[in-house]
Amino acid sequence: MALKVVVIGGVAAGPKAAAKIMRLNPEAEVTLVEKGKFISYAGCGLPYFVSGAVKEQKDLMSTPIGVVRDAAFFQKVKGVHVLTETEALEIDRAGKRVRIRRDGTESWLDYDKLVLATGAKPVVPPIPNVNLGNIFTLHGVPDAEKIKALATQAKARQVVLIGGGLIGVETAEALIQIGCQVTLVEMLPQILRSLDWEMARLVEKHMAGHGVKVLTNTQVTGFEGEGSVSAVITSQGKLPADLVVLGIGVRPNTELARTSGLVLGPTGGIQVDETMRTNDSDIFAAGDCVECKDLVTGKPCYVPLGSTANKQGRVAAINVCGGNDRFPGVLGSMVCRVFDFCVARTGLSESAARAAGYAVTTVIVPDADRAHYMPGAKPIILKLVIETASRKLLGAQAVGPGNGDKRMDVAATAITAGLTVDQLSKLDLCYAPPYSGALDNLIVAANVARNKLDGQVASVSSLEVKRRLDAKEDFCLLDVRGPGEHQQERLPNSTLIPLGALRSRLAEVPKDKPVIAFCKVSLRGYEAAKILQGAGFAKVQVMDGGVVAWPYDKLTG
Amino acid sequence: MALKVVVIGGVAAGPKAAAKIMRLNPEAEVTLVEKGKFISYAGCGLPYFVSGAVKEQKDLMSTPIGVVRDAAFFQKVKGVHVLTETEALEIDRAGKRVRIRRDGTESWLDYDKLVLATGAKPVVPPIPNVNLGNIFTLHGVPDAEKIKALATQAKARQVVLIGGGLIGVETAEALIQIGCQVTLVEMLPQILRSLDWEMARLVEKHMAGHGVKVLTNTQVTGFEGEGSVSAVITSQGKLPADLVVLGIGVRPNTELARTSGLVLGPTGGIQVDETMRTNDSDIFAAGDCVECKDLVTGKPCYVPLGSTANKQGRVAAINVCGGNDRFPGVLGSMVCRVFDFCVARTGLSESAARAAGYAVTTVIVPDADRAHYMPGAKPIILKLVIETASRKLLGAQAVGPGNGDKRMDVAATAITAGLTVDQLSKLDLCYAPPYSGALDNLIVAANVARNKLDGQVASVSSLEVKRRLDAKEDFCLLDVRGPGEHQQERLPNSTLIPLGALRSRLAEVPKDKPVIAFCKVSLRGYEAAKILQGAGFAKVQVMDGGVVAWPYDKLTG
Repeated sequence: MALKVVVIGGVAAGPKAAAKIMRLNPEAEVTLVEKGKFISYAGCGLPYFVSGAVKEQKDLMSTPIGVVRDAAFFQKVKGVHVLTETEALEIDRAGKRVRIRRDGTESWLDYDKLVLATGAKPVVPPIPNVNLGNIFTLHGVPDAEKIKALATQAKARQVVLIGGGLIGVETAEALIQIGCQVTLVEMLPQILRSLDWEMARLVEKHMAGHGVKVLTNTQVTGFEGEGSVSAVITSQGKLPADLVVLGIGVRPNTELARTSGLVLGPTGGIQVDETMRTNDSDIFAAGDCVECKDLVTGKPCYVPLGSTANKQGRVAAINVCGGNDRFPGVLGSMVCRVFDFCVARTGLSESAARAAGYAVTTVIVPDADRAHYMPGAKPIILKLVIETASRKLLGAQAVGPGNGDKRMDVAATAITAGLTVDQLSKLDLCYAPPYSGALDNLIVAANVARNKLDGQVASVSSLEVKRRLDAKEDFCLLDVRGPGEHQQERLPNSTLIPLGALRSRLAEVPKDKPVIAFCKVSLRGYEAAKILQGAGFAKVQVMDGGVVAWPYDKLTG
Repeated sequence: MALKVVVIGGVAAGPKAAAKIMRLNPEAEVTLVEKGKFISYAGCGLPYFVSGAVKEQKDLMSTPIGVVRDAAFFQKVKGVHVLTETEALEIDRAGKRVRIRRDGTESWLDYDKLVLATGAKPVVPPIPNVNLGNIFTLHGVPDAEKIKALATQAKARQVVLIGGGLIGVETAEALIQIGCQVTLVEMLPQILRSLDWEMARLVEKHMAGHGVKVLTNTQVTGFEGEGSVSAVITSQGKLPADLVVLGIGVRPNTELARTSGLVLGPTGGIQVDETMRTNDSDIFAAGDCVECKDLVTGKPCYVPLGSTANKQGRVAAINVCGGNDRFPGVLGSMVCRVFDFCVARTGLSESAARAAGYAVTTVIVPDADRAHYMPGAKPIILKLVIETASRKLLGAQAVGPGNGDKRMDVAATAITAGLTVDQLSKLDLCYAPPYSGALDNLIVAANVARNKLDGQVASVSSLEVKRRLDAKEDFCLLDVRGPGEHQQERLPNSTLIPLGALRSRLAEVPKDKPVIAFCKVSLRGYEAAKILQGAGFAKVQVMDGGVVAWPYDKLTG
């Protein structure tokens, strides 16, 4: 008897699972049920369709050689029977069948194994007038088409994006590129909350530099308009708007699972084990509808992503066919392009690590992404979060125009493998001047971390320096850059003694006060601290990240 | 008493060690001895100075903010005493002192600890007339200046590069860019011998496409010329040349070590333990003069690289100062830019693995380096080498215009950590359409490898297909691409049945003969193999890498 499999959900995990099942078991009868019109499309590409970087909607649902992955393709090539515009209404677990509605008619599909890939839906907050016209989420192809049509036909030029997550940030770039005026409103003190505050702040500044008005700590309380939206009411005042995109997150689609008695986890996603099985051993779940395990903390988390969905779909398929594959968990790895910046992160942020009870050491190390003398070298501001006792890398963040994605993928691999910063600093990464410095950014950062862990240098964060400045504490904020650099932009109340002159001008540095040394990136700051320590100064610290990573305003001119 | 340290060699490992020692022990007296005029320069940047991408020679010896790292800088900023144009002649190990010659005068330097960073020297083969004018190596700044002057002043337009290693390949690019006619001569059957043959072949084709005449299997037997070179005599005939660059490798500078009774390893480099100590516990060695350990095989190897030198210099410094740091070894990781290609590799090649006695499974997977629908997506041809029994990744190679360096750095980390392809396939790498596909190239390749290891698909290399074609064996070479693709370029003796039509045209496929399916990248080839297997075809294989990775000539038009 052929194995009967029903897969519910046709975007990412579902089609992946269905196709893989057929490859593993060509005798199987696999039916893919999808509520919408489209299957197997690249939801993550929607902002690039809005911007016009991706020209055609069908590009998002085509194979690399341009064949559209529609129902006919899945039947012909994959041998998967596809039912689009078909709703799954009920799972009869005892009878092992699914009730569906198609063209207004209900029927039952029998299954031996069932795969739930019901995805997620965007959160629409219960704000007054949220149902006005021209207020959209950006979740499926139809959303993207409507937003693009409005924004490109010059009907909507004043756009308010609500929510500073991935969708908000990527859509901001897309809409600026097609000439809209864009305001991004975020309730929290920062955008991209999986970054630490000071790293997110650098992204906010970069977005502002490209014309996006970023309002953090701002609550949306209502919408105004007749028929369609004309303004967004916020805790910071009224923002005129003829287009609003809601990007405040997604929730797993678990209605069908819940009503069928499948167990949901604390994050709201369907609970699965490493084989992607639910509490019903014949029912698997994968993709944006499931809860994951955080590989660092071991705790449940909810991180919906197309990459994870594809991996989980494959694991589910193998296990549906009697194999034994496992999906161990995620690191919350993320990358996005924000104008000229690559913004990426993996593992635990400092704030998440501290919240989870870890004692951590952190470093912020700005450096060029290749040999600094090569044309095209671009900076990356890199942050590492290290568990102090074990010296293991827990997390990493990269912000800046340089290739931070490369460094975050290496960091993700290192975290997965449980590498310490000592091991990280010895990795034989590929080196040539067009691709990295002789010591890669990650290795330099690992060495800075080792210096701290070994007590070679004491450091202080920019946040702490700002606090001490604001509190008017008595300390020497020592800028060891050159006079030209100092003139161009500088921190408040800083004293300039260029590094090259420091050994001969030690008398000018107060011996009784705490000294905080810094430079552009705090490499010279570190040299300065070592010189001062060597000369008997007792209270010397280096400011993490230097002027480049200073998240506050600077003095200029 | 202050710790007295003498460091011999001022290019990479030496200055790194000297500076780090001073930071760890500001009381130390560190003297850096360098034979040449320059210290702390980026030797790896020399080809980019020749091409003009790096404008000024001093850019190669400056800090990121443009300060030249000369003797005065090292004294002023690092507190290191630097003696350039000073030769170390003898180590008196019993007396713990080094005899030096400077300005014609000899003297002794006492040491408590000695660091040898004597580097390497280019091999000059004993070929008749190798001492003619305009025959250079490219090793130090003076070489680069001479080559650049000759090549840009239109005195030398016909260049022959001897040796297809990194220097040869990078110099070929540099000289083509400034308008020379370039021939690259390699004795072996391939350039870049740390790649497998079929991967190197793709690089050779790309170089040929950019105007470099690549002659493999070609021995240089002599040079002709009056005063300066006019031709290179090879086993393939005479090549006119007014400039020759020898890039046939380097040998460690071990004269001083050897005559002092320090032990050299089987590769000819100075033998050191993981602390970078020689057999004299007060003498350390680091950089291009030492032998390394291969992290995969555990065997000695000699892989001189600026990145390794910097890491080893730091380890030596820490241990000189009484710490305990260790340098575990290398993977032979390498990257180079070859015109529009990024060529990178790490770990063991297939040929090296087999030579070392490993039973391996390999895959060749071409794929776009980001979401295929994104503008700027570029292909990477990725090869993985996996130990069949343990399923551990042993090595990886990437060739093509896409960002292969990122994937090789992840692979290097995975190999270092001993990850299996099963673990590799689950890595939470950063995903967004501008940076990778939903499944990164490495994850797709790991999954292809898992399919093979699990017996889901049988594959055959392009080399084996070529052998069977040449032997006129009876098999069906099944091209499942579209008619347009087939028309444009195709393999000899292939039969076209597009994948979409295969299920309905099974009768056209011979059931009794072996079938080898392929497509552009062998993704559709894999689908085809699964369809044929499902339909009862017994002898079905997929050709690794498809048309894209076919290293031989193709039929066109």
